Amino acid sequence: MAQTFTASELARRFELALHGDGDVRIEGVSTLARAARGQLAFLANSRYRSQLADSSAGAVVMRQEDIDDAPGTALIAKDPYTAFAKIAALFDTKPVHSPGIHASAVIDPAATISPSAHVGPFVVIGAGSTVGDGCVIGPGCVIGENCEIGAGSELIARVTLVTRVRLGQRVLIHPGAVIGADGFGLAMDAGHWIKVPQLGGVSIGDDCEIGANTTIDRGALEDTVLEEDVRLDNQIQIGHNVRIGAHTAMAGCSAAAGSARIGRYCLIGGAAGVLGHLEICDRVVITAMSLVTSSIREPGEYSSGTPLTDNRTWRKNAARFKQLDVLARRVLAADKET
Amino acid sequence: MAQTFTASELARRFELALHGDGDVRIEGVSTLARAARGQLAFLANSRYRSQLADSSAGAVVMRQEDIDDAPGTALIAKDPYTAFAKIAALFDTKPVHSPGIHASAVIDPAATISPSAHVGPFVVIGAGSTVGDGCVIGPGCVIGENCEIGAGSELIARVTLVTRVRLGQRVLIHPGAVIGADGFGLAMDAGHWIKVPQLGGVSIGDDCEIGANTTIDRGALEDTVLEEDVRLDNQIQIGHNVRIGAHTAMAGCSAAAGSARIGRYCLIGGAAGVLGHLEICDRVVITAMSLVTSSIREPGEYSSGTPLTDNRTWRKNAARFKQLDVLARRVLAADKET
Amino acid sequence: MAQTFTASELARRFELALHGDGDVRIEGVSTLARAARGQLAFLANSRYRSQLADSSAGAVVMRQEDIDDAPGTALIAKDPYTAFAKIAALFDTKPVHSPGIHASAVIDPAATISPSAHVGPFVVIGAGSTVGDGCVIGPGCVIGENCEIGAGSELIARVTLVTRVRLGQRVLIHPGAVIGADGFGLAMDAGHWIKVPQLGGVSIGDDCEIGANTTIDRGALEDTVLEEDVRLDNQIQIGHNVRIGAHTAMAGCSAAAGSARIGRYCLIGGAAGVLGHLEICDRVVITAMSLVTSSIREPGEYSSGTPLTDNRTWRKNAARFKQLDVLARRVLAADKET
Repeated sequence: MAQTFTASELARRFELALHGDGDVRIEGVSTLARAARGQLAFLANSRYRSQLADSSAGAVVMRQEDIDDAPGTALIAKDPYTAFAKIAALFDTKPVHSPGIHASAVIDPAATISPSAHVGPFVVIGAGSTVGDGCVIGPGCVIGENCEIGAGSELIARVTLVTRVRLGQRVLIHPGAVIGADGFGLAMDAGHWIKVPQLGGVSIGDDCEIGANTTIDRGALEDTVLEEDVRLDNQIQIGHNVRIGAHTAMAGCSAAAGSARIGRYCLIGGAAGVLGHLEICDRVVITAMSLVTSSIREPGEYSSGTPLTDNRTWRKNAARFKQLDVLARRVLAADKET
Repeated sequence: MAQTFTASELARRFELALHGDGDVRIEGVSTLARAARGQLAFLANSRYRSQLADSSAGAVVMRQEDIDDAPGTALIAKDPYTAFAKIAALFDTKPVHSPGIHASAVIDPAATISPSAHVGPFVVIGAGSTVGDGCVIGPGCVIGENCEIGAGSELIARVTLVTRVRLGQRVLIHPGAVIGADGFGLAMDAGHWIKVPQLGGVSIGDDCEIGANTTIDRGALEDTVLEEDVRLDNQIQIGHNVRIGAHTAMAGCSAAAGSARIGRYCLIGGAAGVLGHLEICDRVVITAMSLVTSSIREPGEYSSGTPLTDNRTWRKNAARFKQLDVLARRVLAADKET
Repeated sequence: MAQTFTASELARRFELALHGDGDVRIEGVSTLARAARGQLAFLANSRYRSQLADSSAGAVVMRQEDIDDAPGTALIAKDPYTAFAKIAALFDTKPVHSPGIHASAVIDPAATISPSAHVGPFVVIGAGSTVGDGCVIGPGCVIGENCEIGAGSELIARVTLVTRVRLGQRVLIHPGAVIGADGFGLAMDAGHWIKVPQLGGVSIGDDCEIGANTTIDRGALEDTVLEEDVRLDNQIQIGHNVRIGAHTAMAGCSAAAGSARIGRYCLIGGAAGVLGHLEICDRVVITAMSLVTSSIREPGEYSSGTPLTDNRTWRKNAARFKQLDVLARRVLAADKET
């Protein structure tokens, strides 16, 4: 199945400088520590430079500045990790999905499926929905009414698009994700909750990726929006009417509550949260498990939380947190006195 | 598809006072900022009153006290948001589900399905389970043995009721939710875990709503219980034997550990957690990402956590948290001296 | 359906000392408070000893030291909870799954299914995958290419194994879990994200249990690994290349980021997080909602976070957290002066 390439072929194809023997044949990729003779590895961080000496890798992608330690063939890249990612894609064996609709799929007569799309077993597609050229709709996906799936998009398996979900081109969605469910809109009426109808949809830009079991609710009156190239990890929760700017990445278990606006090129750490109706400007980094409780207007890195310690120490310090205002007042008062 | 109504028709139907031209024809709803002439908008918060002047909305639901700024027709409500929610429901276009069982569904002969229920494609229903009048069981749902689904309930798609799950009437469950899986009960036996059998079930009251990918485990010996009108957002985790009081709402990613008891009319913020075996009384509000570590006996609002700051400031303060007890002792000692 | 046993039969079968009438007939299990005459209950914690007097239980599993308060028949165990768990398993009524493949299942010709395995409705199994003896693959499961499911394993329903997932023997997976999705590997290239191919797999040891809607990504170059007897609750997120040691248990909503290594016999609390590339040694306990931000080399219990208080108090203290470093400097400076 797997193709092989010489180091010179890779250098040419990815426009990298070649150092050493270009005839080395590469048939796969691995880590520096575990690579065999026929495998390509990479060194992205000079801190691990000492691993070069012991590596059996056939070739290594690295920076020019680390070249003196290269044990053999090297491919020189400004960003070795990115170059390695591109080369590694050559060795990724993906299942082939031939065009056509599986006999078991239930497609509404008012849905439109491109002849070049693949629709797997046990898929359901509702009225008014369209599946574009070259799409892959994996087994068990449920696509409700009035959804639109742009060309080249792939829903791996068991993905649900509830209703009024529009995907751009080349969108990739992992299993268990639910896009377009009702936003959590409630109003209290004489001691009982009533549901606020969720009349909007979800709009997902080109080249977005959405992780396993992630949920993105549809908007109340307008749409929930992900601009292009947004990358969401697993188990992320995006409330209704949230807007996420292009090229922003969110790590696993993070969440954005209703109507939050997150800028472009932001990085939201794992299990971090953004409260509703806030705005975060472009190029903001939120560290893991931090909670954003007011708008952020300056790019930069932001955090909340306390450091981990042994439980006994933590108990003592945490108890003092309850007195923090009182203690601070005393310190400030004492300061004044002196 | 959509019906239209005059402002006076809406006023009559929802028992609201009418201000201005009652013949304005309303064919949909929107926000103040984006509403067109044929649309209804609302003003719930007087802070946004200035938006009234620029709105093209055909009519606006508002409080009596904001009426002076009404640019045209107004419908007067004590709680404009609730009134708007009720009116908006008129314009919600939901797929029609005709009664009957899809040919592909696999129904155990010992299950009972009401003739007025809709059972979609690729549904599985096990022995001893019953589906009540007018229920909608969407595509890909799996209902195990001995479950009971009350009249008018709807499982949108790909919902799992594992076993011994009883739903009241008009329960709404969003895709990916898993109700009635084994509670997480383990006992250590000679260095290996053994499973504590989970012999209870789950009981969900009338008018509950359960969000996408939310999980509610069944009880160990007794049931896990949600009383009526409990509203759970997406990705919430409810451990075995938890009991949640009527009309309580929990926001996305929150969790309650085994045997916790949460009162009535509580609001649990996003990603907040409640430890096991605690009790929270009625009318308690927990703010986002707070952790409840002991029982709460007084209604009110409760919080934990630290504020978000830029990472550099945070690092300095967080480091000091580790010294908090030592610092407090010095402050208190210094106080004594003076 | 249910078998019944006398107290002496149970004593013999589970090697427990019998106290009182051995002829009492037991037909089920319950709590001390609710047990009826034909039911067995347990007392694990002497704190609840006062409940013994009022219990109608036919027999009670308890420690020797509590025997004076036994109201009737008792079974004496060193660890009553573990003994009770074993006995309770006798009364667990599980659906019977007969061997064979449901007519609706879609099995690739290049997959191998043991004749003693049960494959339910709407299951999809891809090329190169094998299902071992006595396995149960419940309704709606999707198993991709090149997966291996060890003998006696059970996937309850709607479980996805994406690709290159190897399960040991007797692995139990609850509904909605997604194992083997792409790890979250991204590299920035000229302002756009490119995907780092995820060429590894997932390896799950014997006797592991994986909760509902939990996600475990496959590795980038090597495998993500759970050693034997690891127990994961619901909605846990395990990043690519994580390694979890044998007999470790993680509570609901916890997470481990890419390449984290967690030791053996660890207990990770609910909603706790472990950052990527860290190591946690054996026998570490992390309390709920704590964040592990550096490696842990000593066994013990660790925590982070602040205590819950009423919101007003919390606001005052949290505001002071922002000044903590400044306050600490003043305290330390004042100390020096005196």
